[in-house]
Amino acid sequence: MRNIKLVISYDGSKYKGFQRLKDNDNTIQGKIENVLSKMTDEKIEIMASGRTDMGVHAINQVANFKTNCSFSVEKIKKYLYEYLPEDIFVKEVIEVNERFHSRYNAVKKVYLYKINNKEYNPFMRKYELFIAKKLDIYEMKKASEILIGTHDFTSFASSKSKKKSYIRTITSIKIDESSGNINIFIKADGFLYNMVRIIVGCLIDVGLGKIDYNYLVEILESRDRKKASDTAPSKGLYLYNVYYE
Amino acid sequence: MRNIKLVISYDGSKYKGFQRLKDNDNTIQGKIENVLSKMTDEKIEIMASGRTDMGVHAINQVANFKTNCSFSVEKIKKYLYEYLPEDIFVKEVIEVNERFHSRYNAVKKVYLYKINNKEYNPFMRKYELFIAKKLDIYEMKKASEILIGTHDFTSFASSKSKKKSYIRTITSIKIDESSGNINIFIKADGFLYNMVRIIVGCLIDVGLGKIDYNYLVEILESRDRKKASDTAPSKGLYLYNVYYE
Repeated sequence: MRNIKLVISYDGSKYKGFQRLKDNDNTIQGKIENVLSKMTDEKIEIMASGRTDMGVHAINQVANFKTNCSFSVEKIKKYLYEYLPEDIFVKEVIEVNERFHSRYNAVKKVYLYKINNKEYNPFMRKYELFIAKKLDIYEMKKASEILIGTHDFTSFASSKSKKKSYIRTITSIKIDESSGNINIFIKADGFLYNMVRIIVGCLIDVGLGKIDYNYLVEILESRDRKKASDTAPSKGLYLYNVYYE
Repeated sequence: MRNIKLVISYDGSKYKGFQRLKDNDNTIQGKIENVLSKMTDEKIEIMASGRTDMGVHAINQVANFKTNCSFSVEKIKKYLYEYLPEDIFVKEVIEVNERFHSRYNAVKKVYLYKINNKEYNPFMRKYELFIAKKLDIYEMKKASEILIGTHDFTSFASSKSKKKSYIRTITSIKIDESSGNINIFIKADGFLYNMVRIIVGCLIDVGLGKIDYNYLVEILESRDRKKASDTAPSKGLYLYNVYYE
């Protein structure tokens, strides 16, 4: 069987999230599978690097699927462009080794969180978090360093999350600021449920002076979700990149 | 009576245009008037620098209204921010001389048209025109110079347009290109119905090699809308700035 890799960009605003739900295809996965199944006349299942929640976007989500169809990758790309809704775009279609698995082979992922710290922008209302009060970027950067490395991130996972291990390794947190647009890039070997949004929530509170460096250490060490700040809204979050060996 | 000037930014995608329609408030004007009328308990009518069509956006639309209310401009701005839909943002509220009229006193306007000539971007699907085929920017710039100056723009006005005079003065056309994003800025003393979108339609056809410099001269001289290219879609168009003496 052929194994086809997809690189996908989507505006998550209108969807219930990436993962297909029973009897409901208002999901990114559902939309893509429907188009591919129609094209190939097979029951296509795509496997993504990970799910994204309701309202979360992607710049470079990676997925793959198995097929017996004989369409060229160019033809598949064209067909997807024609039949997918305008808010889902498959940027790349590549034939890969049959052992490639977009989830198991992913070694690192980068999420981006966009904050507008200048003036409200109606065109970006679904694509960034607007915060009127000036954030202290220096303090945010300093605080973000606490989280880098291998830690138990229980405090930064949704209480709904059920995992065997809450230990993850954050390789880097980059906070870029340019004329009031703040981009926070977080790179890790894996993320817990809501982890980026809870970390961003804490960094925002640091930037607003509500909590400080030492309190962030306390949050991390407490392994208690209730200690950490509120989950930042989904609209500012983008799955930015997925890395493979 | 007090005279209040507004600078407004809006995402026009969901609206029937700027101008209030009878028994229908799904217009930018309607939304703003409703909020202001509720706030002041007066029947507020706003006067804008000009209407924008269905689907057209604005970065800096200017409007003004008369009121007897005693609210400070800060309070008006806050109220509008709170009660307007998220896709309409009043950036500035300024008390002006009672003779100021946002339409009659406007001496120049700038429209911006955004073209994406690189890769389809799902986040910008309502905010730019995507053209896959590479445009020849050099030819577009050269051709645009034909239109600068005082001309009869009948060929570049919708056939639905009924005006006493079709003579307008275009002061400048600036075509910026940066990594596949093309911004066309057109500055004039006034614009006819659909004028920017028809000009952009022609410039695109020049960029695609469908028509050339000489044919654009012919279009202009013919004073015949049928000669010119198709009207470019509304989604790429922004009222960018309005100038006053």
